This record gives sequence, structure tokens and C-alpha cells, in this order.
Amino acid sequence: MCGIVGYIGNQQAAPILLDGLSKLEYRGYDSAGMAIYNGETIEMVKSRGRLKVLNELTHAGETLPGMLGIGHTRWATHGSPSDINAHPHFNKAKNIAVVHNGIIENYLKLKKKLEKKGYEFVSETDTEVIAHLLDYYYDGNPLQAVTKIMHRMEGSYALGIIFQDHPEELYAVRKDSPLIVGHTDGGSILASDVPAVLKYTRNVYFIENEEIVRMTADSMEFFTVDEEPVEKESTWIEWDVNAAEKGGYEHFMLKEMYEQPKAIADTFSPRIKDGRIVIEELGMSEEEIRDIQKIMIVACGSASHVGYSGKYILEGLARIPVEVDMASEFRYRNPILDEHTLVIVVSQSGETADTLAALRESKKRGARVLGIVNVVGSSIAREADNVMYTWAGPEIAVATTKAYSAQLISMYLLAMKFAQVKGRLSEEETASMLEDLKALPAQVEMLLNNKENIQKFANRYLAAKDVFFIGRGIDHAISMEGSLKLKEISYIHSEAYAAGELKHGTISLVEEGTLVAAVLTQKELYKKMISNMEEVRTRGAFVMAVTCEGNTEVERAADYVIYIPETNPYFANSLAIIPLQLFAYYIAVGRGCDVDKPRNLAKSVTVE
Amino acid sequence: MCGIVGYIGNQQAAPILLDGLSKLEYRGYDSAGMAIYNGETIEMVKSRGRLKVLNELTHAGETLPGMLGIGHTRWATHGSPSDINAHPHFNKAKNIAVVHNGIIENYLKLKKKLEKKGYEFVSETDTEVIAHLLDYYYDGNPLQAVTKIMHRMEGSYALGIIFQDHPEELYAVRKDSPLIVGHTDGGSILASDVPAVLKYTRNVYFIENEEIVRMTADSMEFFTVDEEPVEKESTWIEWDVNAAEKGGYEHFMLKEMYEQPKAIADTFSPRIKDGRIVIEELGMSEEEIRDIQKIMIVACGSASHVGYSGKYILEGLARIPVEVDMASEFRYRNPILDEHTLVIVVSQSGETADTLAALRESKKRGARVLGIVNVVGSSIAREADNVMYTWAGPEIAVATTKAYSAQLISMYLLAMKFAQVKGRLSEEETASMLEDLKALPAQVEMLLNNKENIQKFANRYLAAKDVFFIGRGIDHAISMEGSLKLKEISYIHSEAYAAGELKHGTISLVEEGTLVAAVLTQKELYKKMISNMEEVRTRGAFVMAVTCEGNTEVERAADYVIYIPETNPYFANSLAIIPLQLFAYYIAVGRGCDVDKPRNLAKSVTVE
Repeated sequence: MCGIVGYIGNQQAAPILLDGLSKLEYRGYDSAGMAIYNGETIEMVKSRGRLKVLNELTHAGETLPGMLGIGHTRWATHGSPSDINAHPHFNKAKNIAVVHNGIIENYLKLKKKLEKKGYEFVSETDTEVIAHLLDYYYDGNPLQAVTKIMHRMEGSYALGIIFQDHPEELYAVRKDSPLIVGHTDGGSILASDVPAVLKYTRNVYFIENEEIVRMTADSMEFFTVDEEPVEKESTWIEWDVNAAEKGGYEHFMLKEMYEQPKAIADTFSPRIKDGRIVIEELGMSEEEIRDIQKIMIVACGSASHVGYSGKYILEGLARIPVEVDMASEFRYRNPILDEHTLVIVVSQSGETADTLAALRESKKRGARVLGIVNVVGSSIAREADNVMYTWAGPEIAVATTKAYSAQLISMYLLAMKFAQVKGRLSEEETASMLEDLKALPAQVEMLLNNKENIQKFANRYLAAKDVFFIGRGIDHAISMEGSLKLKEISYIHSEAYAAGELKHGTISLVEEGTLVAAVLTQKELYKKMISNMEEVRTRGAFVMAVTCEGNTEVERAADYVIYIPETNPYFANSLAIIPLQLFAYYIAVGRGCDVDKPRNLAKSVTVE
Repeated sequence: MCGIVGYIGNQQAAPILLDGLSKLEYRGYDSAGMAIYNGETIEMVKSRGRLKVLNELTHAGETLPGMLGIGHTRWATHGSPSDINAHPHFNKAKNIAVVHNGIIENYLKLKKKLEKKGYEFVSETDTEVIAHLLDYYYDGNPLQAVTKIMHRMEGSYALGIIFQDHPEELYAVRKDSPLIVGHTDGGSILASDVPAVLKYTRNVYFIENEEIVRMTADSMEFFTVDEEPVEKESTWIEWDVNAAEKGGYEHFMLKEMYEQPKAIADTFSPRIKDGRIVIEELGMSEEEIRDIQKIMIVACGSASHVGYSGKYILEGLARIPVEVDMASEFRYRNPILDEHTLVIVVSQSGETADTLAALRESKKRGARVLGIVNVVGSSIAREADNVMYTWAGPEIAVATTKAYSAQLISMYLLAMKFAQVKGRLSEEETASMLEDLKALPAQVEMLLNNKENIQKFANRYLAAKDVFFIGRGIDHAISMEGSLKLKEISYIHSEAYAAGELKHGTISLVEEGTLVAAVLTQKELYKKMISNMEEVRTRGAFVMAVTCEGNTEVERAADYVIYIPETNPYFANSLAIIPLQLFAYYIAVGRGCDVDKPRNLAKSVTVE
């Protein structure tokens, strides 16, 4: 998604902005730009394409003098990626410049009104409306102009704004789109995400919804939409800056896959004490746990696949009914929940717009909300009733691997904890499961080391057009994630199907040579799966299977088999996903795709 | 799925078998065959491909003398479609012949054992195991041999069997795969589905699970697996034989689309009395309705899309939590339900194997089961606690249209009924909804008459490779059905996505010219949908929209717009699906696909 950086201080702004934007690159974008106050006017440079272009246009920022500026990387929502649609945007007099993350939903209405008043639009963006609207309301008082436009705009926004006739001030405001500010040595810095500021400060202020900030080189004031001052406390950020480097791996994605054993261990280790599961952050008494009548898991993308696995595990172990919903659907479908409902929201970034909105909706309706989140201090972490962190460390590749694996572990721990409290898990069972849990990191490591074989196999399928992933039960959830991995980075149209459902329509797409990936980790479903594999194979499909060691019978129905080691059936996802991640990765590498930054995608989806 | 026909009597068997098989053609198959006792030996003819080939090989049956025989159309599950894998199958001595629907799940184990005993297999099928197993157990008593193999086989089967040394008898047996028998004028007939026998009798016996039938030219005896005789009553079939003719339309699918206004009216009319909704078949008191704490809708394919719409409608109107599940998943995931759960199973044929199994599982767990079924007297209709028929008439095209539309109407009626009982629907609201319901047939008619425009548009997209259908809420459910229609008959890889979820991965597949079909029938979601449409459009997608009259704002974000008339938002599916059906149909016609019998697909999926 789009990225925002702003700076005011005693140093040249442009190089700082470019550096900050480069730290947000991983979020995905298609154009970039900066606006700098050069002492007389606001100078603007922007361009379609990678940040590299902007860097070259400005000689790494050197040719843009001035110590106040805003910068932006854009992920197109309204208007195609182009120079003209890139941010910042000006008013006509070019004395107000604005950068924007989010979507102004009533922009068409606002645009029409402004056009009637004589305003001319040069871009197709919703953002340009903001620049003209600021112009319309601005009478010399920036703070007032900002609060006035807030009353007119519907949708989500994080804004950075500079006014030519207030060259000592940098303004920012947000609603439903994240924004942080912090003091640097001799200045103030503004960004939409933590990595952009880490080099300059670890002490940041998270701007709350509908809060405005007025920054100068040495001060920082916060206001409500009614222009009342707000007192705020800063947060200390722990993250390791070096974690965001490739460290010898060809891609962040590969590096992060290799960090999975550690992410898994880091996520379960602090929560196992003396053979018991202790999740202190859960903040729920045993009585409160017993009182849960329904769990709703709400998430987007891969996190929702963790939810589908979670449904099987929570229902199976704790016998609490679980409903999984996509966050973008949940918030608009008038869901049925109450104070006996536990809503679990899952998000790596903790800023996913739909998931955050679902969290708020759930709280409004009286449910308790537990966040499973990777980024400390993120919006979801702050707003959830309780938060269980996944300790995966910063994830840079757009396609998630280690955060997904850590989320799975959180789900296992929760399910086991709930089952224990409800008296559904004996000490022996717990002990055996914990043993299996502790074995996972080494098992994952072993599967990762099989990468050459998978690469060899993947190289034969670089030209695949349609791929189907099939599985039953938990294996269906695994299939969903395997399929999404492949499609998001290789651009091959792949689709996951419940194995038994394929023949109700989609099997008509199977023809000679179609690749079908079958996941079979659940013993009691082996036979049914083998029948489904034979169905597609008799129609010419090439079948690749991921199954547990010992299930050699599968070889009669598969052309290529990958075995995973024995573990508790509920934990199979953690192992089976590894070869599927590797498969997707090597297909994408072989096809020459930009693995870490696939086209059209953003790391953290902060618009709806 | 596979089809079985058998005959014994005073007429030549082969022409009758061919005629019966032709009536089962619509169910989908890839090879066909017959075995006839010619007075001395059993003669076998079989062939890959359409029935036409078998017809030509036997001069419409004339060259095969004999008055006892079995015939089969095969839809491959184990072993590719080929002459050798086609049914019937022989034992080695060729004095026992068998045809089989279903899947023998332990066939590999049985095959190994038989091989050890010296049996040689010529085909790759699971069915051949049955022929050899019969041979192994046969000592002159056919009934005993049949019961013995029943004890050894796991899986599902409907069998027709002839023994050369019992030329006056035809045997049949079934488990989890449908089979009916009836008397003809001077003979007895056996079939897997009603249309095959309608020409000869309307008085049929539905064989129950694990029942065996011994037929002669003038008698019919039923036995349990313990060889005890069973008394049975016959059922009178009402269906109109002519309904199964194309009547001037190019395809059954087009004809059935045109029958939708009637199917809709026939389904709601008998259930509206004096402005009230009366569903007598429901068999539930008001107290029992108020007692429902959860509804689970379980189905496969298009029927499950009715379930997803149903979730929105039932939760929205009656505020009862609804869980939708694919039948193939439900039965194996240890679902949480009890006597306060109403399970609604939806199936056109009433024979869908997974759905039937889900019904049985639900009953075993104490839930009440309501069937929404089109075929009177089908297994689901007989086994459900209550059945609400959809009055769509026989549906022949593999891709469902009118049955789907009738199922939707049943869902509306149920939701309104439950909402009324729970006091959540005022008389005025009911009246207004009923008015909208009654307007649907004429509105559907109007949309169907727009077919030339849609055909023109479809012709521009015949070469499409990847198509995405997007929508939110009910519109997501509509998208699922629109997408399935397209993919099953045109073989274009299309996929439905919740509009807000697309950007979590799948949007990376959108490139210049990708076709995206957007459904927007829910006013409060128009703005969000338009944002999503702009997201794909800025990446080069061509956007086709289906929306309500008056929503002209959509034209700014779409390249082609189809308007549907105003109706109650809960009923929008019934209208929005029509242009999507027509679109799928004309794309398939334009691509030269076999619209009524798409490759690999079966009308009624009677295996898992």
C-alpha cells in the first residue's frame, strides 16, 4: 500500500525522505514523488515506476534544496499508475501540497462540487480533491483548514500537508490509515510505518483516529478535530534494523522462509512453562474461557487461511463452534455476535484496514476481541482487548511465510489452552502435543533443506497455466495457502478446492497435463483423497502430492510425492506448507517474477 | 455420473438398454457398454465415447440377440476413459458380468488379495474387482455370492449382475448409490435413475441401502444382506416425459433458463395463502421454529451457493446464526450440532452422495434435517425429516439454472417464514416482500429477453483466459454462481472473490484486458464496490458490471453495465444471476463447447 514520509528540521529534507521511502518500498507501490519547500516555493518531483527513478531524477535528493518536505509511494486505487497521478498533489496556486494514503469515498461528489466552483482537476485521483478542498477552506490558518476538510471527507486517510506560507510547520492527520511521528536529532519526522523512521528515532507517537499533528523542527502538538490540544505518550520500538536486510539470500522471501524454525520456536517458547500452556497476554480467566459460546476468526488473505485451520483445531480440540470470515465481508454483513462471542482477529501488520474495522465493529457489538498480531504497537495491537504477539520479527516480502507460520503456532496454543480449561485435554495428550510442537522447528528446517529437489521439480512446471490445490479438512486450509502463495508471486492462475467439491464443476477445467497439487496429511481421509486424485488423473492431470511419511499407497495415484515427517495431525499445516512455499518460490524465480514485490500487491493493505 | 440399466423379459434386451442409457446421457459419461445373454454365452460390447458409437456397433442393438442384459454409461473414477475400462466387466470365465456405479474404496487391497489367489486383471477399474470377487464366492447360488461380496466391499455401489447359468434372473444391489426397479409389460427393468424407465413404467421401487433384488421376467424379490426377504411398496412417478425434450431450443440449458419464470412461480405460489407464507411440508410448529439456535446449510456446487445467499437472508431477516458447509467437508469434520440445530440440505437430484451422507450424519447427531430437493421420491427426499420440494421440473443440462432459481425461492420463503414466527417481519414488510416476490417471474422474463445484447458482448470475450467475479455480501454469493456457470461449461478459468479480498493476493493476476465481472445489487455497498472496480481497472482490467437500475454512478468505473430491475435487496440474486447465466451460455456456445454435457462433469454426483 501507499507510503508516506515527511520531514521538517535542520537538515536537507529530500535525502531523508528518499531514505524513508526506500524503507517502505516493500509495501508495494507503482509510483513515487516528493514536494519540498525550497525557501521560496514548493518544488515537486514525481514519477511512475520504482523509487530508483525518483532517486536518479533528483541525484539522490541533492538537487532539491530545502528542509521541509513530504514524500510518497503510491499503490494505485483511483486512476492508473502514472506521473500525473503520483503524489504529492497541489492546489492550483501550488502553495499547498498533500500526500495521502487511503481512499476518499465521496470524492466524486466533492469533485463535482469543486468543479462547479471553478476548480480544475489535472489527475484522476481521489487525492487531488483534498488539495483543492484545502485551498477552498484555507484563509491563513492551516489547522482550521485541516479540521474543515475532515468534516467533509468520507473514507480513510493519512495525510501529510505543507503550506508555502507556513514554512516552519508540517501538518499530518489520519483516519483509519496508520501514521506515526517522532523527534529526530534536530527535526521531526512523519511516516506511515515504523521502518521508515527507525534510523532516526525509536521513540514514536502513534497518531489516533481523527487526530491532527502540527510539527516544527523542535516541537510537536496534537489536536482533536475540534482543535483542542491532546496530550500523548510515546512508544519505544524494539525492532532490529538489521532484520530488514537480505543477509545473503537472493530474496527476502527465501530468507524469511529460512527464519521459520526460529519464528515458530520464538512464538511457542515463552508460552510453555513447566509442561503447561501459559498465555498471560490472553487476559482471560478460566471462567471467562468456559463462558465462550462462539469464536469468530476474522482476517484477510493468508491470515484467514490460518483461521480456516484454526476452525478445525479449535472445534476439534475445544469443541467451541468457530466461524471464519473475511474481514471485508464481516464488517458489512451485520454479523450475529454478543458478549459470549470471542472474536479473534489475525494480522501480520496489525494495520489491515478491513481487519481493523472488523475489530471495531465487534467491540461495538459487545464481543471480546483478541488480536494475533506481529507488529508491536500497531493499531490492532492497541485497540484489541487483548493481544497475543507472533514473534516472527519484521517480514518484508509481500508474500507471507514466517508470519503465517507463527500465526499457526498461536492458533495451536490457543486451542490447546481452551481445551485444557474445558477439561478436554489430558496431561498425557498435552505432553505428547507439546513434544510434537517442540519438534516442529527441526522438522521445518529439514523440509527447507530439501529445496533442491523441489526446485528441480518446479522447473518442469514453469509454463503451467492453471493449477488446482485440493485437500480435505485441515488439508483444504493448507491448500488455500499453497494456492495463494503460488498465484500471488508467479501470476499463475491457481485455485484451491475442497477435494470432494472439485467434481461439482471445476473438474471440467482439468485436461491433459493440468497440474493438481494434493495435500493428504489426515490419515482417516487418505482413501477419499486417493479417489479424488484418481478422478483428476484419469482425466490427464499431473498429480503432485504432499503427504505424511509412510503413506506410500499414495504413489499409485500421484506422479510426484513429497513426504513430511510424523507430527500431531492438528499441526500438519506447519510442515505441509513448507514444500508448497518452496514450490511457489521456485516457480516464480524460474519465471523471472519479482518475488519480493509482486505486481499490484501491497504488504500491508491499509485501504478497503 | 455413471448410469445403469438392466432388463429381463420377453423382448429383445439390447434396444431397451440403449434407449434407457440414452435417457441417462445427460448425467455425463465417457464410455458405454452392454452385456447380453444370447441363449448360450454372455456377449459383451463396449466402447469409449458417446452412446452413438455403441449404437452403431450393434445396429441399434439389433445384432445382439437375447432377452436378459445389463448396460452402463461410465464416468471415469479409477482408470482413464477407454474401451477396456468401460463397463460391464467379466470374471475370467466370462460367465458373470457386472455393471457398477460408485467407488469401491478398498479395491486396491481386494485386488492384491485376488492377485495372490491367481486372478488376473485386464482393466484399471475398481469394478473389475467385483467381477472376480463374485467369481471367487460363487458356488451356484447367486444370492449368496452377492451377500458375501457385500461384506467385503467398502465404499459405495449400485450393481447390476447377470450369471450365465441363471439365465432367468437379473440381480441388483446397492449401497449409497441410487437404484430403482419396476415391472414393464412382460418384463422387469432396472435403472440408476427415473428417466430411463419412464417409457416402460411409472410404478417403481426404490431399492434401499444394502438391499438386494432378484428379478425375473414376471417377479421381483427383495432381500436383506442376511438373505431375509423384504416387503416393499412401489411409488408412482408423476414426471412428464416430454419435459425432457428440447422443444425447439438449441440446448437444454437455454430451454431451462427460459423455464425459470415458471419454476420460480411454481415454487412460491402454493406456499402463499391469503398474504401469509404457509409451508406445510415444513412440519415444524412455531415453538419448534423459535427453538432453532443454529442453522447449517449443507450442499455441493451451485446448491451451496444458494446456501451462501441463504446465510445472508436467514441471518438478516430471522437473526438465526447460519453456517454454510460443503457436504464433502461437513461429513468428515466432526461438526458441532445438536437437537437445537436445523440442518438444511439442498440438492436438485436428491441423490448427491456427499449431501446424502451429510444428512445421515446430521440425523445421527440428533439434528432435525430439512431437505430442499427437486426430484420427488429421491433418497434425500425420503430420508430427510421434512422435505420442501422445488417445483422446477426435470433438469437435463448439467449446468443448473432453473433448479438453482427455484432453490433460491425456497430459501426466501423459509427465511420469511422464520422471521415472521420470530416476530421480526411486520405485516407491511411481508406484504411488500410478497409483492416483490410475485414480480420476479416477469422481471426474469424481461432479463432473458435481453439475450441478444449479452450474446453480442460475450462474443467479444470468447478468447478470455482468466475471469474474476467480484461482489460483497449477497453479491459475493451471486458471483460464486456466475463464476461456476462460466467455468463449468466454457472451460475458462474463472474464480469468484469477495471484492474486498481480491487485493490480498489474487489482484496480482489482473493485467491489461483481464475480464472482471462485478456484481453490485446492495445499495449500501455501491461505494465500496466502485472502489474495488477502480482498483482492478487502473491495472488494466475490463470491467463488466451487473447492478440495479438507477445506479448510473457505476458507469464511471465499468466498461459494460447490465441493469436489473428494482426488487427487495434480499431477492437480488434471482435477477442478477440471469445475465450471468446468459453470459456463460453464450461464451460456451461461441467457443463451440458441448453446453449441455460439459467434459468431465456429471449431472448428479453420486460418488464422493
